[in-house]
Amino acid sequence: MTAPNRNTLWAETLVDELAAAGVRTAVLAPGSRSTPMTVAFAEHEDVTARSLLDERSAGFFALGRSKRTGEPTAVVTTSGTATANLHPAVVEADAARVPLVVLTADRPPELQDSGANQTMDQERLYGDAVRRYRTLPEPAPRPRALRSLRVTASRAVATASGTPPGPVHLNVPFSKPLEPTPVEDDIPPDLADRAHLAVEGRHGPFIQVSRGRPELSKADLSRVAAALGDAKRGVIVAGPANQPTPSRDALDALARATGFPVLADPLSGHRFGHDTVDGPTICGGYDSYLDGVDAWGWPGPDVVVRFGASPTSKVTRHYLRDADARQFVVDPAGGWREAEFTATDLVVADPTRLARRLAEQVDRDGNTTWRERFEKAEATYWSLIEREIASDPEDFEGAILSTVATEVPPGSTLVVSNSMPVRDLDRFGRPRSADVRVLGNRGVSGIDGVTSTALGAAVDGPLVLAIGDLAFYHDMNGLAALERCDVDATIVLLNNDGGGIFQKLPIEDFDPPFTEYFETPHGLDFSPVADLYRAEFVRVDSAETFRSLYAESLDSDGTQILEVRTDASASHRRREELHQRVHEHGPP
Amino acid sequence: MTAPNRNTLWAETLVDELAAAGVRTAVLAPGSRSTPMTVAFAEHEDVTARSLLDERSAGFFALGRSKRTGEPTAVVTTSGTATANLHPAVVEADAARVPLVVLTADRPPELQDSGANQTMDQERLYGDAVRRYRTLPEPAPRPRALRSLRVTASRAVATASGTPPGPVHLNVPFSKPLEPTPVEDDIPPDLADRAHLAVEGRHGPFIQVSRGRPELSKADLSRVAAALGDAKRGVIVAGPANQPTPSRDALDALARATGFPVLADPLSGHRFGHDTVDGPTICGGYDSYLDGVDAWGWPGPDVVVRFGASPTSKVTRHYLRDADARQFVVDPAGGWREAEFTATDLVVADPTRLARRLAEQVDRDGNTTWRERFEKAEATYWSLIEREIASDPEDFEGAILSTVATEVPPGSTLVVSNSMPVRDLDRFGRPRSADVRVLGNRGVSGIDGVTSTALGAAVDGPLVLAIGDLAFYHDMNGLAALERCDVDATIVLLNNDGGGIFQKLPIEDFDPPFTEYFETPHGLDFSPVADLYRAEFVRVDSAETFRSLYAESLDSDGTQILEVRTDASASHRRREELHQRVHEHGPP
Repeated sequence: MTAPNRNTLWAETLVDELAAAGVRTAVLAPGSRSTPMTVAFAEHEDVTARSLLDERSAGFFALGRSKRTGEPTAVVTTSGTATANLHPAVVEADAARVPLVVLTADRPPELQDSGANQTMDQERLYGDAVRRYRTLPEPAPRPRALRSLRVTASRAVATASGTPPGPVHLNVPFSKPLEPTPVEDDIPPDLADRAHLAVEGRHGPFIQVSRGRPELSKADLSRVAAALGDAKRGVIVAGPANQPTPSRDALDALARATGFPVLADPLSGHRFGHDTVDGPTICGGYDSYLDGVDAWGWPGPDVVVRFGASPTSKVTRHYLRDADARQFVVDPAGGWREAEFTATDLVVADPTRLARRLAEQVDRDGNTTWRERFEKAEATYWSLIEREIASDPEDFEGAILSTVATEVPPGSTLVVSNSMPVRDLDRFGRPRSADVRVLGNRGVSGIDGVTSTALGAAVDGPLVLAIGDLAFYHDMNGLAALERCDVDATIVLLNNDGGGIFQKLPIEDFDPPFTEYFETPHGLDFSPVADLYRAEFVRVDSAETFRSLYAESLDSDGTQILEVRTDASASHRRREELHQRVHEHGPP
Repeated sequence: MTAPNRNTLWAETLVDELAAAGVRTAVLAPGSRSTPMTVAFAEHEDVTARSLLDERSAGFFALGRSKRTGEPTAVVTTSGTATANLHPAVVEADAARVPLVVLTADRPPELQDSGANQTMDQERLYGDAVRRYRTLPEPAPRPRALRSLRVTASRAVATASGTPPGPVHLNVPFSKPLEPTPVEDDIPPDLADRAHLAVEGRHGPFIQVSRGRPELSKADLSRVAAALGDAKRGVIVAGPANQPTPSRDALDALARATGFPVLADPLSGHRFGHDTVDGPTICGGYDSYLDGVDAWGWPGPDVVVRFGASPTSKVTRHYLRDADARQFVVDPAGGWREAEFTATDLVVADPTRLARRLAEQVDRDGNTTWRERFEKAEATYWSLIEREIASDPEDFEGAILSTVATEVPPGSTLVVSNSMPVRDLDRFGRPRSADVRVLGNRGVSGIDGVTSTALGAAVDGPLVLAIGDLAFYHDMNGLAALERCDVDATIVLLNNDGGGIFQKLPIEDFDPPFTEYFETPHGLDFSPVADLYRAEFVRVDSAETFRSLYAESLDSDGTQILEVRTDASASHRRREELHQRVHEHGPP
């Protein structure tokens, strides 16, 4: 087929190379200026095209898709304010290291700064938040220009998927005609003959990128292995990561070889999915019991190996800050992801390979006292928590998150919003061997775009979203993806009518302005949302009802929104009481 | 009163100076890091504080307020993705020249690039879209630092209100404590004694800014006046502007002195509010009849004076492009707001003063043929349109906009969304003498944030919003302002289930992908919105019903959403037919 005009040729070439380089999904927001790209994506047989109307939601949907699959997702908008609506997802993709290919259509350069309608300065729109930015030249039906286009597309995908992964931005100007309208003599016949690939005999990806991963020298590896081997009290910290980091196998090997317990953040990929009987010591109760270890007379760790981003648990961060330990931060991208500035060693290496090699090399005696201490603490913590929750499960957000985590079936994806849900999952989500992928937007920890992130992450298996009311309100538009992208979900809406997290903060004591400007009760009745979008809405009135409706929803088609109305201050008191109880209980 | 700590002192000083410099409204999005600013705004007696939960809507609400009042509005967010959500409103404020003071809280500098949670690079976040950017130093209880803070605040407001007005960005880092918690010895006693104003005896605005406006020399003025005086066929074009530009009096004087007809964009402030009997020749039908003037044998204008931004009407833009005329673009900021690049003269001068001085100086004979031609064209056009609409008002979006414009009472604010409503208002909104303020986001012409812009513009008099379904969907969150900011509105929702504007574009002929990726029908039933927010929802089934419900709504309290379901392609055909009819009718 011959392209009818240069814009079609240009967009088809761009999209063809993006697809060849690994883009599998394109999220398209409607608009006129982006027409050539929209048409090319809609017609490309290797790309699934999704159409979403709100660019902010579209950006987060693409983010969720990339987070879940590890593959770069494209998102396309028209020119103008549409592009600025992607900014929240772009900054999250940057901080959370999510591969994203942002394609913004632009008006031709001669219209810049001329007062032309719908024209704004889109150059470097996302500043340093993108790994790579280019405004493409205007479409040109010339072989070198088209080769350059393919190289640019291929490099963009490679950069987005690099170390670290992240967003890239291609700003793509087009003049009219934007549609695949035939334009006579627009494309030279010899170019048309070559099926507008511009290059003979290279129909695959124009460029193959083979990317090495950082690996320590033997000497460096031995030094790290020796430090681990010599340690009396080592701890592995698995922080938030989009994929389990290191891989579960590799972490398992390292934990076995060293005998170190693993503090597994709920977003690390390691809280769930490890053998809880014969596997490594996966810890999930640290946010509570590590807060009291000084009083219990526990010594601190003397060596720490940290993977992933900074842990969600503030108690853990402070535990590590206060430890007189050698702390290795392992990061393949050389980022310094440790904001207490007490880590001693930055190890720039691929986490999975490093963990495997260390596991082979670490030489330790059989001292197991330290690990057993954590095992006992875990057993004691979870039996206390489960007993307490069972004895009085009502009006407590933590009880809901406990059920969410316990009952979610293997193979599910569980997305938790920021503010309280991720914290409650951290404290009340008991480690399980079931393989559950837990995701959250922990890069910049916004409450925007969480619903879209979740719906974008629906790839296979059940999808559960546990979300607070402010985050739910913020991205209600994202629910349009249920119908438009054919997603089934179970949405657990924890509605405490406002900013429950502020109950944790000292501003609570200053009212006014506390209630009006911080807790900000909205009084919204969310049930009409079910009529707006393709969902059922059920208000849940007890923990028991929740448990059965949750199981039912997981088992059934369609999307159910299970709203649990809670009292933020009651839940906050209960968290404090349970924390208190753990410490009254004393060392295990 | 003494500030309890340096953060409180810093934020109070900042807010006090912003208020003294003219900020009257602050739109606050909840968050923790912004606590000192939120508390200071909430407690300042000269500032109305509004709390909105979605920062994107908050940004547009502030934009609408500034657009309507001409005064700079502040918008405050916490750190992180919240700040990126303001980006769409910031680029619109830039392009549409709306004064906006953006205050983003930030985390302290030592946490930058450390992997700390909720920390991102907020420096120069909005690029060149802001007139001024500064990251403030960390709060310091020192006289010079506090004087510098006042100067910065005062300059920020002055720049936002300058020539041209626009957004400014202050990025404001804070360390804990964020609350007004007493911190011993945090503030030196001598500073506390001075009531934390940091300066004795200067309790007003710390700086008064007296800003001159550009005025032509006598010689330059005479040259322009001579060109106008010598012209045979002059036209005044009043393009979109936030305030009538030049003022109505001044335009009236200029039009009288020159005898030139005024092509008054619906967003110019001149379509409505001029005496239609004895006033200037205000034209509103140009988008139709100027398209055929060649066929009618009308000569083109030989001089054009352009005020405001580029006209909404493409026909007008092409009419001016094709005219062999001397074209004066008058812009006080020296912007080149004429994207056909055919204007010959850029006049950097205050439009109101210039119009008055020209009116005094222009010397013309009594030739009125040219003006009468436009008067007749207008009379013919509107009688034809009104007859046609009256004879068959159903299933036509243009008929609704005609009623909206005709029946809106004097003193109202009418906000129209982009895409079709503003175009239909342009064609079917007959000039009236009633003083109606018409606003739209015509800077970058996005469909995002229109509802919030409208609700922010509710200052006094009835508020009417005429909006398409995609724009309505995009900013549904903005409806929370009805309750939270105590707004009453009449919302005319033109629901044609998707992107009606694409019916105008050639992509319509390519299906697929037309329907799925361009028209993008969403099938949303918006009636549940009434239950979510404080509004009544009425589906209107005829033009007659619309007319009476519209009048009723304007007369009653509360917010009514009047949904008119239309068929985009039927409306499009009707527009074409009417256009055809005007030209069949021949020259008046």
